[in-house]
Amino acid sequence: MSFIYSPIVILILITKASSSYLHAFAVLASYTQHINNNHFCYKPNLVKKKMASGKELCEGVEWRIRVVDGSSEVLVPPTGLARKVWLRTKGLISGLRMKVRMFLKQAWDMGANDPRKVIHCIKVGLALTIVSLVYFMRPLYDGVGGNAMWAIMTVVVVFEPTVGATLYKCLNRVCATCLAGFLAVGVHWIASQSGDRFEPFVVGASIFILASIATFSRFIPSVKSMFDYGAMIFILTFSIVAISGYRVDKLFDLAHQRISTIIIGTSLCILVIMLVCPIWSGQELHSLTVRNMDKLSDSLDGCVRLYFTNSNGEDDQKLQGYKCVLSSKASEESMANFARWEPSHGRFNFRHPWKQYLKIGASMRSCAYCIEALNSCINSENQAAESIKKHLSTSCLKVSSSSSSAIKELAESVKKMNKSPTIDLLVEEMNSALEELHNDLKSLSHLLNPSTTAENQISATGLVPFMEIIPVVTLASILIEISVRIEALVGSVEELVKESEMKDKIVAKEEKPEEP
Amino acid sequence: MSFIYSPIVILILITKASSSYLHAFAVLASYTQHINNNHFCYKPNLVKKKMASGKELCEGVEWRIRVVDGSSEVLVPPTGLARKVWLRTKGLISGLRMKVRMFLKQAWDMGANDPRKVIHCIKVGLALTIVSLVYFMRPLYDGVGGNAMWAIMTVVVVFEPTVGATLYKCLNRVCATCLAGFLAVGVHWIASQSGDRFEPFVVGASIFILASIATFSRFIPSVKSMFDYGAMIFILTFSIVAISGYRVDKLFDLAHQRISTIIIGTSLCILVIMLVCPIWSGQELHSLTVRNMDKLSDSLDGCVRLYFTNSNGEDDQKLQGYKCVLSSKASEESMANFARWEPSHGRFNFRHPWKQYLKIGASMRSCAYCIEALNSCINSENQAAESIKKHLSTSCLKVSSSSSSAIKELAESVKKMNKSPTIDLLVEEMNSALEELHNDLKSLSHLLNPSTTAENQISATGLVPFMEIIPVVTLASILIEISVRIEALVGSVEELVKESEMKDKIVAKEEKPEEP
Repeated sequence: MSFIYSPIVILILITKASSSYLHAFAVLASYTQHINNNHFCYKPNLVKKKMASGKELCEGVEWRIRVVDGSSEVLVPPTGLARKVWLRTKGLISGLRMKVRMFLKQAWDMGANDPRKVIHCIKVGLALTIVSLVYFMRPLYDGVGGNAMWAIMTVVVVFEPTVGATLYKCLNRVCATCLAGFLAVGVHWIASQSGDRFEPFVVGASIFILASIATFSRFIPSVKSMFDYGAMIFILTFSIVAISGYRVDKLFDLAHQRISTIIIGTSLCILVIMLVCPIWSGQELHSLTVRNMDKLSDSLDGCVRLYFTNSNGEDDQKLQGYKCVLSSKASEESMANFARWEPSHGRFNFRHPWKQYLKIGASMRSCAYCIEALNSCINSENQAAESIKKHLSTSCLKVSSSSSSAIKELAESVKKMNKSPTIDLLVEEMNSALEELHNDLKSLSHLLNPSTTAENQISATGLVPFMEIIPVVTLASILIEISVRIEALVGSVEELVKESEMKDKIVAKEEKPEEP
Repeated sequence: MSFIYSPIVILILITKASSSYLHAFAVLASYTQHINNNHFCYKPNLVKKKMASGKELCEGVEWRIRVVDGSSEVLVPPTGLARKVWLRTKGLISGLRMKVRMFLKQAWDMGANDPRKVIHCIKVGLALTIVSLVYFMRPLYDGVGGNAMWAIMTVVVVFEPTVGATLYKCLNRVCATCLAGFLAVGVHWIASQSGDRFEPFVVGASIFILASIATFSRFIPSVKSMFDYGAMIFILTFSIVAISGYRVDKLFDLAHQRISTIIIGTSLCILVIMLVCPIWSGQELHSLTVRNMDKLSDSLDGCVRLYFTNSNGEDDQKLQGYKCVLSSKASEESMANFARWEPSHGRFNFRHPWKQYLKIGASMRSCAYCIEALNSCINSENQAAESIKKHLSTSCLKVSSSSSSAIKELAESVKKMNKSPTIDLLVEEMNSALEELHNDLKSLSHLLNPSTTAENQISATGLVPFMEIIPVVTLASILIEISVRIEALVGSVEELVKESEMKDKIVAKEEKPEEP
């Protein structure tokens, strides 16, 4: 199998080559500069640092030319062109080797962390190999008139990691191809009626106008979200069929072949994507939402706990979990978009309220913004007095733990897709904790030193200057704001659950024929 | 020209049809329910509200069936099937007409707001019409062996709104096609050596393995950002050429034709995109960054001013400007990605530090998170005492106006791409305003009523209960945090300017031949 293995290595090398080249040239440029300055001191560590460029993946090969003390043995700087070229080549190869090694490690880690990606790749390979069989089997090959190429092309461009995305592309492709095919045949007929002289102009003008309009429609948000790919395929098919009509006289044959091969390709894709370990956009969106809620809850609780108990045992990754919430807007939107195309799967019906997940996502993000502010409060240089921290710690911790368990419960509620029986209780608990925090804040003024110049008198009187209260007060008021936003989150989760139950009932009604 | 006009209308109708259908059915369902209940009262306003669905675009057609008082004239509810069908059809048509009208209005507004989108559409039409000429001119047509279709396909899939995106796709397409073509010829040769029986297996296995690996590579971030499209084209070309090799004996011809037509298509695209009103990703990213900084500055200043002066004159759109900053991460990333492919244009060199814009974007977002918290503070129910507001208003306003003018100056500095001479001064000003705010906060304790139960005594003593201080104190400490983040923003802007100047120098050196 070495003849198959070697192209793979070449592929990987070349795929990375262009970026490696650029970098290797930069390395060489700095290297030759050193040589020209007669220093002959190559700093591989510095270059390594540059290469790793924040990815902290750099391990392994280290290529070092020892710097020698002027006394013992002096290396004569190389002057010959041949030597220069040799050194350059060596640098290039070692740089390339390091890049390739890093790249392979990164790829391996990715595959190990998410085996579904590997499964997807195998699915693509499988679908392509199956569609190739059409080509190898003569009867099928003759049936589609040698245009099996279109089936292959369809499989390659239509196959996406999730079922929703694949269905979106398949349906768009089939509909747009049919529509454009019919239109093109119509335009061709009109063109042929207008005489030989005007035919090219009619065809050209129709292509110009339709392509412009279809391209414009891709900018319109409602079209973009549903038919972006379809609009592109429309332009493509229309242009090809309209122009081929001018040359190839078997216009209907061409249209028919293209449509039938595309249908072969899309059906194959749909079969493979839905039967072999399917990944549903809807399911993914659902799990992402649940996961993000858990993260939100963990980082809220963790941040406040870290501040008041100074425990270093908190997992830093857990504390930063809210950042995932901040950055998942784009993926939520695309998943919700694709989920609309998916048929019933698992507990989700065809018209599951996917848009509601976007509202929940927005609510979660608004909480995450506040957690970001909370975090900056915790990391600020302006530290609060210990006595004040102690005074508020019980109630603040209570608020944070009750809010975070409310979020956890919401996550559970979304997970099971039913209204949680305890959420009202938890919200009440959160509100009573807030009440307590309120009272504690009110009584803070007792601890306050009214004098502005008395900063050194803390230990004497036990009173704290106003400035040392500010960080805790800010933290408390951000916590209060977070709890307000959590109530909004509760509202949007309840709406989701309600809508989903309503849809379930509608579907159940549709499935059960009504009797008079 | 009516024969061209009619397909356009059909296209628009059908493009929106599927969503319209769903909606029209929903309308009809509610309508027939009314009929069945013998009410015969159709509420178009309610439906209209549903249809507009927050887009506030709904004007125009209003279809109303008057509800009659039971006394004067009683409408007999229709029972005939024909009448029902007629009413349904009428409802469907009117719903569709309204949708189409709304859709056209939306499209018109979009085009009027951003004429460059219209220009892009015309460019696509132009490029497609030109490439069709290849088909109409017999010599050219014979030259590429009837495969002009590939040129059309290239133009359709490669043409993107910005130069960077088009270049990215063109270069990826050409390189991937060449690479895959050579590999496929190699695999075909190996397969032909292994005898008739094993040939399909060798070709099938190579397709399976290469397709899987190339698909996997698309998941790796570094490959995805640079070669995502190339990996897809690689799979496509390799599969087509390898399989065609099995059937068509003119393998080299096929590969040659495909490559030459693709080169025709890409060169045409590059010419049109770069010569006719080019839109550069880099320029767009640059303007977006400047625009976002201005928005950030406006909303920071506006929010604080609104809080302290209670002026209703503030433009609400201005106040919400920071939300644009929050949501522009994805577009910044894609623009920076495409900008790397662009040659020198305007004031930007080939290796302009585009990545630095992402850092600036991240800094801006971290400021925007705080402005979001600030906003929630302003809108909170817990209002502060007027006396406290008055006490802090001067210094808070000073901080906000000096910070916002620092951001404005940074925007100016990015715009002109040189280090601002006044930024240090402005930061100093901001810091002195912060110092003042600090002092004002310190002296707050004088105004504070130490008694917790004395809430009704405000007017008597002129002192304020602690709870009414909290909102202003929170606002002040968020303002302090914002100024810390602005200093980070200053740092990243200065880095950008420095790097850009360095690159300029390197380019100037490269262009000017050195003399010994």
